[in-house]
Amino acid sequence: MTEKLKNIAVLTSGGDAPGMNAAIRAVVRACSFYDLNCFGVYKGYEGLINNEMEPLNARSVRNIINKGGTFLKSARSKAFMTSEGRKKAHGNLIANQIDALIVIGGDGSFTGALKLSEEFDFPVIGIPGTIDNDINGTDYTIGYDTALNTVVEAIDKIRDTASSHNRLFLIEVMGRDAGDIALNAGIGAGAEEILIPEEDMGIDRLIDSLKKSKKTGKTSSIIVVAEGDKSGKNIFELGEHVEQHLDGYEVRVSVLGHIQRGGAPSCYDRVLASKLGVGAVEALLEGKRDIMIGIVHKDVTSIPLKQALEKRDHQHDRLIKVADITSV
Amino acid sequence: MTEKLKNIAVLTSGGDAPGMNAAIRAVVRACSFYDLNCFGVYKGYEGLINNEMEPLNARSVRNIINKGGTFLKSARSKAFMTSEGRKKAHGNLIANQIDALIVIGGDGSFTGALKLSEEFDFPVIGIPGTIDNDINGTDYTIGYDTALNTVVEAIDKIRDTASSHNRLFLIEVMGRDAGDIALNAGIGAGAEEILIPEEDMGIDRLIDSLKKSKKTGKTSSIIVVAEGDKSGKNIFELGEHVEQHLDGYEVRVSVLGHIQRGGAPSCYDRVLASKLGVGAVEALLEGKRDIMIGIVHKDVTSIPLKQALEKRDHQHDRLIKVADITSV
Amino acid sequence: MTEKLKNIAVLTSGGDAPGMNAAIRAVVRACSFYDLNCFGVYKGYEGLINNEMEPLNARSVRNIINKGGTFLKSARSKAFMTSEGRKKAHGNLIANQIDALIVIGGDGSFTGALKLSEEFDFPVIGIPGTIDNDINGTDYTIGYDTALNTVVEAIDKIRDTASSHNRLFLIEVMGRDAGDIALNAGIGAGAEEILIPEEDMGIDRLIDSLKKSKKTGKTSSIIVVAEGDKSGKNIFELGEHVEQHLDGYEVRVSVLGHIQRGGAPSCYDRVLASKLGVGAVEALLEGKRDIMIGIVHKDVTSIPLKQALEKRDHQHDRLIKVADITSV
Amino acid sequence: MTEKLKNIAVLTSGGDAPGMNAAIRAVVRACSFYDLNCFGVYKGYEGLINNEMEPLNARSVRNIINKGGTFLKSARSKAFMTSEGRKKAHGNLIANQIDALIVIGGDGSFTGALKLSEEFDFPVIGIPGTIDNDINGTDYTIGYDTALNTVVEAIDKIRDTASSHNRLFLIEVMGRDAGDIALNAGIGAGAEEILIPEEDMGIDRLIDSLKKSKKTGKTSSIIVVAEGDKSGKNIFELGEHVEQHLDGYEVRVSVLGHIQRGGAPSCYDRVLASKLGVGAVEALLEGKRDIMIGIVHKDVTSIPLKQALEKRDHQHDRLIKVADITSV
Repeated sequence: MTEKLKNIAVLTSGGDAPGMNAAIRAVVRACSFYDLNCFGVYKGYEGLINNEMEPLNARSVRNIINKGGTFLKSARSKAFMTSEGRKKAHGNLIANQIDALIVIGGDGSFTGALKLSEEFDFPVIGIPGTIDNDINGTDYTIGYDTALNTVVEAIDKIRDTASSHNRLFLIEVMGRDAGDIALNAGIGAGAEEILIPEEDMGIDRLIDSLKKSKKTGKTSSIIVVAEGDKSGKNIFELGEHVEQHLDGYEVRVSVLGHIQRGGAPSCYDRVLASKLGVGAVEALLEGKRDIMIGIVHKDVTSIPLKQALEKRDHQHDRLIKVADITSV
Repeated sequence: MTEKLKNIAVLTSGGDAPGMNAAIRAVVRACSFYDLNCFGVYKGYEGLINNEMEPLNARSVRNIINKGGTFLKSARSKAFMTSEGRKKAHGNLIANQIDALIVIGGDGSFTGALKLSEEFDFPVIGIPGTIDNDINGTDYTIGYDTALNTVVEAIDKIRDTASSHNRLFLIEVMGRDAGDIALNAGIGAGAEEILIPEEDMGIDRLIDSLKKSKKTGKTSSIIVVAEGDKSGKNIFELGEHVEQHLDGYEVRVSVLGHIQRGGAPSCYDRVLASKLGVGAVEALLEGKRDIMIGIVHKDVTSIPLKQALEKRDHQHDRLIKVADITSV
Repeated sequence: MTEKLKNIAVLTSGGDAPGMNAAIRAVVRACSFYDLNCFGVYKGYEGLINNEMEPLNARSVRNIINKGGTFLKSARSKAFMTSEGRKKAHGNLIANQIDALIVIGGDGSFTGALKLSEEFDFPVIGIPGTIDNDINGTDYTIGYDTALNTVVEAIDKIRDTASSHNRLFLIEVMGRDAGDIALNAGIGAGAEEILIPEEDMGIDRLIDSLKKSKKTGKTSSIIVVAEGDKSGKNIFELGEHVEQHLDGYEVRVSVLGHIQRGGAPSCYDRVLASKLGVGAVEALLEGKRDIMIGIVHKDVTSIPLKQALEKRDHQHDRLIKVADITSV
Repeated sequence: MTEKLKNIAVLTSGGDAPGMNAAIRAVVRACSFYDLNCFGVYKGYEGLINNEMEPLNARSVRNIINKGGTFLKSARSKAFMTSEGRKKAHGNLIANQIDALIVIGGDGSFTGALKLSEEFDFPVIGIPGTIDNDINGTDYTIGYDTALNTVVEAIDKIRDTASSHNRLFLIEVMGRDAGDIALNAGIGAGAEEILIPEEDMGIDRLIDSLKKSKKTGKTSSIIVVAEGDKSGKNIFELGEHVEQHLDGYEVRVSVLGHIQRGGAPSCYDRVLASKLGVGAVEALLEGKRDIMIGIVHKDVTSIPLKQALEKRDHQHDRLIKVADITSV
């Protein structure tokens, strides 16, 4: 493939994540460095279907490395889930003489890319961009480190008011299937308890634990709850339950919500995105395709895109132990 | 009174606000400067009733000027709303030979202080500390400027994701009776629409305006809504209503909540708190009592505490005009 | 003039300040609101001489309210100091049928604008944009509040390391002629001493004061020094002098430098810039010219541009007292 | 050793780093969890010599996880470099019945710990805490990630003003022997050139490169320079040299300095510090000694303290390539 590789398209898809712009920038500049043409596709697969793409050069991506969001915009495309939609998208890729497509996004985005590859034998590369860090085959996804800092800074602020008032706060953070944000930000913010989807703590144990720590003189508490926790209650119901079963605590609920997706990317995410963006273009030049570029212990690596969609092995045990020990 | 002024007590009451620590610090150091003794009362009026107070010196307030919350803690005291409670509180003030009480808080806190003064002829001074900026007789309350910055930074982050996805965001900010935060942070964040308690925009007009701006090509929008807006719907109902009446927009709701109360105070709030804290002690030395210390056009001023509880004259007209013009 | 007002030009000049973009945005959108055409001039007066201007509309200024710097760019123009330069500039204004020029900048920029008005009878309006807050006729200049927060955040970080090491830090902040930044940020950061251009503290008094506070047990100290302080020594010489005359302190020097000019503007600066930008366009519509738009106690006001260049009355006495009392 | 392990001492030494407090907290709470007594030593080895230590319990370390600096304070101790000093220090450890010492710091601190171990057969454990990331045997040191974010945020601000003025900025960052900060923050900040101690770029090549990028239309540039770069000039001389050899650029120099050591630690640094602090105590319980606890690919590991002092294998090649490609 290498000899014929000339035109690359890049898009962002699914939920946006800080660092996506840095990844696009790296793809564009690597194309420029290796004398390839780069086309930016707007609005993810939706734009591919509607043929919304335009050439990007090194100057097009100036001053975006520090911007949250994605200037190519993102969308969830229902049309691309149909074979007609994908056919149209493929038609546009061919019409624009695109040789390969780089998709920056999460598992939903990779599923779409894989279909494009399987149905039309079209070369695709995935770059993991999602704050949830729930992709197999990479230690970190782009945006995750920034989201952790955003969460920790928000909880630092809430702790100011919690400890001024002897209050107990339930704070919901993102992570429907993965407790990475809750667990790490919970440790980082010094949360007293952390509820994650991978473990069912049980509400009774939570109440017991809070009662115990109250007895030892703790007057305010922060409980971090991942969106997808197993308690079977939403966070507001959980808040009421806790208030009913704990005397003398005012309970407050805070849903951090969409601030977690935005903000200037952290240095780590900018560097990671730069490495993966360059890595994706170089992988294409080496003749690779249908892979995801990831980071494993500082090295840029790749695995078949199919594997990236497999269940990640979580190994939270050690972190849960650290949380137990440090959050007295 | 000046000749006998020796012991001053200070407390924080009601919702905490960034800069309260800076105000306590200024009170303590002004006492030290003028050779007065200063006592810190913990947990607001609750601590006054329970006699939780201790002497503070210049060193006690080291390294707190930049901390959110209040190290004296705050509480809403039901007991202090009863005359028995206030009697007990007054008894403790007398027992500790306190000559005057400085109360840092909002209107609820001042109401309590005023009762203490009226019922027991005890000298009190109020310092306005609340993020809502809803106190008569002062241009700014301590914590308000910081809250504005917190809100604007949060909305900047949400805008990243809003503009990446062509989404409309409804963002709830604090301000049950006063639209100051919504209006100023809305202008500062470049919000397309701002709903405040003082004005009833009408949901139909909101929908019309959003339709219009969609026609002009706007693909994402931020609407800032004060807690106490007049639409008669809570923000989630409002979100559903907007989504039903607007085609092609995904609507998302975000409640900023308690992060608005926390965080390191802005420089403005630290300086304001320092001025007012010093001003409160100096006012006592000048023989003043039962007043609120405030800031009017850079000058530290005072008004009778009773007046501070009167309805503030809002004068939002000019700002609403500026919002209309700049938020196209 | 009102009947013939159709085309307005706007430029930024001199040192950039956070909030300049917000001011440009407000000018552009006010023009749009009042059916005027707005032209942006690039690189200040230099661009006026080189005829670098283009029409701006409401969409041109999207997503810039939160960006530091100025997208119109700024420059110090030597050519504009010559009458030939100004003649050329005026020729371009006429050629482009510009009816009035809005200049966002500091005193140097206003001096240039005034010459344009005097020599060619061309209507100009000044908007005060400079972090130094050294302009007569306005309580605040655009960018000043942001700079204060930047300085205070930087000093908060330096204090972490100062108090971990029992060190004395000399920190230079901007403000060649005005001590506003040093004085306010010094109070806000809890600096032990503050040296400003308007007051000559005297090095001996500084050393004495530091010796005294060391005796009382203080183990680390922050001294804030305005660029233009009167000690006659630059900050590195000052540092050496202090180290020689104080036993047992490690002295460190930190020049905050250009970070003070950048960063996302604070909410206050965004709102101020929005008010002044709208105010400038409305003043032109009311037939006013050769004035500076400013803020005095929350109201948008104007004074003759000539007066804006006069020496400001500083009145730092009260703040210096507050600093003395709170920085024990 | 395990059976007799009862009392552990912990100190911070050398330059402070954000996250040191989180590491102390984790050590203290792990001791509490495993029923050991923990003693905090103030001011590093200096305090060990002067017997400044006191017991710490789980409550002693409340609300410090998010604070920069080290509440145990740090110092560079000349006395500890003498054998008398170390003898005194050892005497105090014995007198207080301390069984092992945990040292949080960099290579200088580890050298001291090693001597204590070798000369007196006293068990020591090192935890890498330094912003420089220059320690062998750990992927990351505590404080490094925070420093990267601080640098990148500062450069983001400087870029605002650089691009408003067509200026070239030389920005000095920390890293006397290691270019990790310069290289990663340089990539993260989108710097046009990066000078590190490990590579001698050559001033002529720098000038050539800047000339080339100016020709391609670049009007402002950021050059990141590590303290210890090989150019043989200090940064001010370098600035003058560049200005003389480049037409039409205003050159500005900014030394970021001590802000890089402070600030609230990033989430990554807080979690890392928590893992390593717990790991250090658990290693002692397992009978290990004279090792450094580090992080290698997410796992807490240990190497002999002696090896931690060996030259780290840098492997910057890949990053330098990424920098070359992305910083056009």
